[in-house]
Amino acid sequence: MKLFSLTLALCMVLSGSLCFAQADGAIEEDFKPSTLNQPGKEYPMVNSQGYARFRVEAPEAQSVSVSLGLGGRGGTTLTKNEEGVWMGTTEGPMDEGFHYYHLTIDGGVFNDPGALNFYGSTRWESGIEIPAHDQDFYALKDVLHGNVQQVLFPSKSTGTSRRAFVYTPPGYGKDQTKRYPVLYLQHGWGEDETAWSNQGHANLIMDNLIAEGKIKPFIIVMTYGMTNEVRWGHMNEFKIENFQTVLVDELIPYIDTNFSTIADQSHRAMAGLSMGGMETKTITLNKPEVFSYYALLSGGIYSPEDVKDHAKLKLIFLSCGSKERPDGVKKAVDTLKEAGFNAVSYVSEGTAHEFLTWRRSLLELAPLLFKD
Amino acid sequence: MKLFSLTLALCMVLSGSLCFAQADGAIEEDFKPSTLNQPGKEYPMVNSQGYARFRVEAPEAQSVSVSLGLGGRGGTTLTKNEEGVWMGTTEGPMDEGFHYYHLTIDGGVFNDPGALNFYGSTRWESGIEIPAHDQDFYALKDVLHGNVQQVLFPSKSTGTSRRAFVYTPPGYGKDQTKRYPVLYLQHGWGEDETAWSNQGHANLIMDNLIAEGKIKPFIIVMTYGMTNEVRWGHMNEFKIENFQTVLVDELIPYIDTNFSTIADQSHRAMAGLSMGGMETKTITLNKPEVFSYYALLSGGIYSPEDVKDHAKLKLIFLSCGSKERPDGVKKAVDTLKEAGFNAVSYVSEGTAHEFLTWRRSLLELAPLLFKD
Repeated sequence: MKLFSLTLALCMVLSGSLCFAQADGAIEEDFKPSTLNQPGKEYPMVNSQGYARFRVEAPEAQSVSVSLGLGGRGGTTLTKNEEGVWMGTTEGPMDEGFHYYHLTIDGGVFNDPGALNFYGSTRWESGIEIPAHDQDFYALKDVLHGNVQQVLFPSKSTGTSRRAFVYTPPGYGKDQTKRYPVLYLQHGWGEDETAWSNQGHANLIMDNLIAEGKIKPFIIVMTYGMTNEVRWGHMNEFKIENFQTVLVDELIPYIDTNFSTIADQSHRAMAGLSMGGMETKTITLNKPEVFSYYALLSGGIYSPEDVKDHAKLKLIFLSCGSKERPDGVKKAVDTLKEAGFNAVSYVSEGTAHEFLTWRRSLLELAPLLFKD
Repeated sequence: MKLFSLTLALCMVLSGSLCFAQADGAIEEDFKPSTLNQPGKEYPMVNSQGYARFRVEAPEAQSVSVSLGLGGRGGTTLTKNEEGVWMGTTEGPMDEGFHYYHLTIDGGVFNDPGALNFYGSTRWESGIEIPAHDQDFYALKDVLHGNVQQVLFPSKSTGTSRRAFVYTPPGYGKDQTKRYPVLYLQHGWGEDETAWSNQGHANLIMDNLIAEGKIKPFIIVMTYGMTNEVRWGHMNEFKIENFQTVLVDELIPYIDTNFSTIADQSHRAMAGLSMGGMETKTITLNKPEVFSYYALLSGGIYSPEDVKDHAKLKLIFLSCGSKERPDGVKKAVDTLKEAGFNAVSYVSEGTAHEFLTWRRSLLELAPLLFKD
């Protein structure tokens, strides 16, 4: 068996106070530690406008830069002071929400020791959180919380046990007769099964929606989708069969056996972001008897001719950031509706191909699932 | 509420093949990637004798060293080749098992981008695994696996929801009438509630013991013990009350309410490593009605006079590495036995104050729990 390591990092953040950004060009000096810093670490810091400020100790280094920012070659160049401490601030504000980044120190890529780590771009990157005006929906609040569990499910097709994370709503397990629908939720290229929990805060988004009575509680299953790994820019080499087999033939049966699920098509949804959306589209169309809710988050569109028979298809949900291709998503939904599909589009204002788009998409999608 | 972030990292490793080390001084060139590397990363590498080899890209750096090794100032100095790649091998073999480490690049501390991250010494450090002759007991095997879940429990005393990880044995939850004993298992100074899962592989150790029929299955609860944080070397400033309140007044009731536990003293154990052992000793003696199995792993000893009434105390387990103070542990157990206690000592051969000592201690302890 191949040597491998799997790591789960689950992250919860407590949202701090938030001021609206000024429009007059001055940088507000209300910098605070990013909520995704390692315990006790002051830097990196973020301000209410979305600027990020970095501080790195490397007294003998000759150059230190940060991959985040709007600087000349992209990123932020830091400058060293007399104490050997490198500091710098992004040239402009970042989009609200989560961003991956790393440092380049004397030509080598390293993480920022002040920040927590998040798996993306096929490595554990540093992460930073820019305060968002609507961040309350993914905050850690004083409500009943669900659990997120690591399960190891047997996979004959890949010759090992594979990992998935399963969110169960508050109260799950107390009443043995109560059964739940299931959303299979996929990450994007270069990410892994920790993304939706760590970067996405899926569990906190669900806890809060359930506390507000806005959704029919359901289980979320998150596993690794890049079973057949491809390099960035080589998406055409991706073969869906490996992951499709793991998901449909191995994971779904495992979940239905080991969790209190309503194990039928009308209580099973699939959603994915970016490459996870591509996988969702491919698998839902290859296996039309498995899911009845399809959601692509910055992950493509469906056309009416894609779906041979949509009698049992309850919803197609397409979303993206306003800085992506919102017209494409809206037009696709209009076309689907004209053809008799139940279709919904959502555009996240002011965000691009990044995690706040997808947190907001989950917020919009969840209330639409499993209600009929 | 204070801004904070909590991150869980759960790590599973698949053990590779293992050769016994040679005794003749030559370095075996059978280096393989450490099983704790990030996906796809070749370095750091380890060989069958316990040597570790590092490779870091930082072409313009002036100095790169690794904190692990037996070099002059402790650690391993790397040297740069013509391609700007820094490499080096530890001067001697490391102890078997898990080690924390970090890089120092031009005077700044950074993690090794090839390695996964593990929380210890109050920061997310890099980690490396030296193959152990007995590593099979914590390997990922083709057996039924338990789950490890993140729970968020309300804590009035600290004004927030706090995180714990709960290992449930395979089959947990299927039979609503089946109830389980509970082990409360604490980490050491500078670590957190991820340690026993990530560094310790507690879940895999339990899965394998259960598959072999060697233990009475139980639940393990792992939470953060440094509620009142102290700096290294300032242990005398530690006040137990904060954590004692969280554990006894908040976490235990939450676990007993939300999990199928046998909620009484004779089915509740507490164990801890290092500072977690100090906490275990203090709390078990402050609250003698709560636990009936006490285990200190490289974490001190009990004397007969510590325990006023040991009628309900079923076991005291004391362990350490052979490179620590094994005579102290053995002598303490002899004294306890002479005074009529059921006491057991365990010494891990060839290890020091490090995680293989504690994985092995859990292996020895688990079969002794909850059998009477």
